[in-house]
Amino acid sequence: MATVTPPAAPEADPRVKAVFDDIRATRGSDFINNVWCYLAFDPGLLESTWAEVKAVMATPSALEPKVKEMLYAAVSIANSCEYCTHSHLTAARAKGMSDAEFTDFLRVVASAGKTNHLLNGLRVPVDAAFLKDKE
Amino acid sequence: MATVTPPAAPEADPRVKAVFDDIRATRGSDFINNVWCYLAFDPGLLESTWAEVKAVMATPSALEPKVKEMLYAAVSIANSCEYCTHSHLTAARAKGMSDAEFTDFLRVVASAGKTNHLLNGLRVPVDAAFLKDKE
Amino acid sequence: MATVTPPAAPEADPRVKAVFDDIRATRGSDFINNVWCYLAFDPGLLESTWAEVKAVMATPSALEPKVKEMLYAAVSIANSCEYCTHSHLTAARAKGMSDAEFTDFLRVVASAGKTNHLLNGLRVPVDAAFLKDKE
Amino acid sequence: MATVTPPAAPEADPRVKAVFDDIRATRGSDFINNVWCYLAFDPGLLESTWAEVKAVMATPSALEPKVKEMLYAAVSIANSCEYCTHSHLTAARAKGMSDAEFTDFLRVVASAGKTNHLLNGLRVPVDAAFLKDKE
Amino acid sequence: MATVTPPAAPEADPRVKAVFDDIRATRGSDFINNVWCYLAFDPGLLESTWAEVKAVMATPSALEPKVKEMLYAAVSIANSCEYCTHSHLTAARAKGMSDAEFTDFLRVVASAGKTNHLLNGLRVPVDAAFLKDKE
Amino acid sequence: MATVTPPAAPEADPRVKAVFDDIRATRGSDFINNVWCYLAFDPGLLESTWAEVKAVMATPSALEPKVKEMLYAAVSIANSCEYCTHSHLTAARAKGMSDAEFTDFLRVVASAGKTNHLLNGLRVPVDAAFLKDKE
Repeated sequence: MATVTPPAAPEADPRVKAVFDDIRATRGSDFINNVWCYLAFDPGLLESTWAEVKAVMATPSALEPKVKEMLYAAVSIANSCEYCTHSHLTAARAKGMSDAEFTDFLRVVASAGKTNHLLNGLRVPVDAAFLKDKE
Repeated sequence: MATVTPPAAPEADPRVKAVFDDIRATRGSDFINNVWCYLAFDPGLLESTWAEVKAVMATPSALEPKVKEMLYAAVSIANSCEYCTHSHLTAARAKGMSDAEFTDFLRVVASAGKTNHLLNGLRVPVDAAFLKDKE
Repeated sequence: MATVTPPAAPEADPRVKAVFDDIRATRGSDFINNVWCYLAFDPGLLESTWAEVKAVMATPSALEPKVKEMLYAAVSIANSCEYCTHSHLTAARAKGMSDAEFTDFLRVVASAGKTNHLLNGLRVPVDAAFLKDKE
Repeated sequence: MATVTPPAAPEADPRVKAVFDDIRATRGSDFINNVWCYLAFDPGLLESTWAEVKAVMATPSALEPKVKEMLYAAVSIANSCEYCTHSHLTAARAKGMSDAEFTDFLRVVASAGKTNHLLNGLRVPVDAAFLKDKE
Repeated sequence: MATVTPPAAPEADPRVKAVFDDIRATRGSDFINNVWCYLAFDPGLLESTWAEVKAVMATPSALEPKVKEMLYAAVSIANSCEYCTHSHLTAARAKGMSDAEFTDFLRVVASAGKTNHLLNGLRVPVDAAFLKDKE
Repeated sequence: MATVTPPAAPEADPRVKAVFDDIRATRGSDFINNVWCYLAFDPGLLESTWAEVKAVMATPSALEPKVKEMLYAAVSIANSCEYCTHSHLTAARAKGMSDAEFTDFLRVVASAGKTNHLLNGLRVPVDAAFLKDKE
């Protein structure tokens, strides 16, 4: 399936082990999902990717964790990224997304997909009232 | 700019006027933004588009209005729909998105764009634990 | 606006003039739209691009010209290509697309955009009955 | 594969059964493809999705059914929606798309993908002659 | 998996055999990958597709072959085309892409995906200094 | 044009001034392009965005700077990000991309766009020989 070979024993590399330990500690779970196992093919890329995901997604910020996972999944759906769609919808559920919220999420994402195509076809000019600068 | 000619006096058509009146009543504002003025070129398409946007975005549902607008904007950014990006970010602000939340939104959307490209390049298999069916 | 400089006098180059002459003869019109004027920055790229567009779009084939222009515009909308959306919707009208057909086109394209997002979110397995091979 | 669990006995729910009955009656076939079986996880979403697909795709309108399925498939290809690509190409064949038309379809869709990338790279300004409004 | 049936004995058709022979000669390998086996369903489409890929990718030009394969893969990742991502990353490796270059490639592609989403959200005006024309 | 208001005097904020100084020093130029002027609306987002772009694009790595800018532009074209297309093509030229290389770049990017659409339509299975893992 993949374009890289995941290491057979990733945690033999201390840099990989340090990231995996931090993933487990941050999430309070022993489960390491595939993206991290495969990214272990390059410890530097694993470190920088995890550092960003942790900073953006696993650190308290203005938006609640559940909403951030839903936004992440919405972008992933629009980009047709199968892995990210699955992993972030799973995370959204784990962080409290209810069945009713998931259905509502699907309605909003689908309607956005619809009007995005309608407006990309109509090419209506943006209202001046929406612009923050006036260049 | 556009691929259609907006009617010079859209509300001369009673079907258009009925939609515009409902937009104003629903939003409590006299401002009719361009998408509706241009969609008035075809009253049937105007009616069905507004009916869907009203049902999905302007009707109480599981998710709060602000979050729905942010999800809508996230999809619009990923699809590079300029009009929808502007209109739904404006709506998100009107429904309470703070400056800090907007920055957080941008961080999440940008990081999703990043890992979507990383995973579409790595083509890592989806973990069985994420699948809801086992087909 | 553009990433290249269009030549001031493109037809001074005989290769460019030959393409422009063929565009005019093929279309029965003196109008040369911007894409060709700008592509004249590289006569080889101009020649190969026109050769393909002429072969695919201006040569009789299984589908009628109007339908081909609508298919072209549908892809361009989904890819958010502003220039191609305008030029191929204009061509579709010139080749007979009625107002009613354009509205129908918009409905289909918008609904496709909607269910594309819904299915990219649901990740439903493809029915075996749809597959032409069974690998 | 999927992000939702399809119900084991979907037609035990009368709302689901009503939709499935209407799908069978509309199509004159007993085959219910996977998207509907999975959407049965939420009867309301199933109803609204089918209502739209039926109104847009299974109701006589300005464009012929075969062309509408081909437009739908073209958008689905551009959005990389695997399920919709399969289901709407299958539908296009069922509604009369010949092998020669399918090859022609692929040529047009592929050429559109090519020039969309070329024009998104060149960023050529849209000809004033193409604009329906002059804002 | 596919939307077409690949011929059981494609080289029984002399037009297909001629293309396959040219693929083998051009690449110096007996391996014919799936895209060509499936495209053999329509010899004309097979011929025109191979002619273009050969002209663009297997003919000496300004950019080195390895870089061209990486550019091809970058576009394929952004378009979520699984087949092209695999085939062109494999080709890039065959033409000399090192492990370090592949990791660097992934970093650049992922960062581009990130700032593409950031800028499509911010809608910052393009600097006049970047424009080649001044229309 | 934009969804944020750029600060009138961005360098009055010492965090912004520090980033701008580093941009000028890194590039050996006084020109600060719009993306940084607008990102100054949030100094934290400005800092993290510049830190990533500097690390990935302005730091010696396996690939040469010119190639990295071309890869960046290729992804931006596929994502229809107008700003990034302009800024990274300008950067590619500044780092040595010749006119002949730019034309070659356009040919490769356009052909990738073409076959991405062809393959997303054909849905050909990936050859086992291309897979690095065998899951």
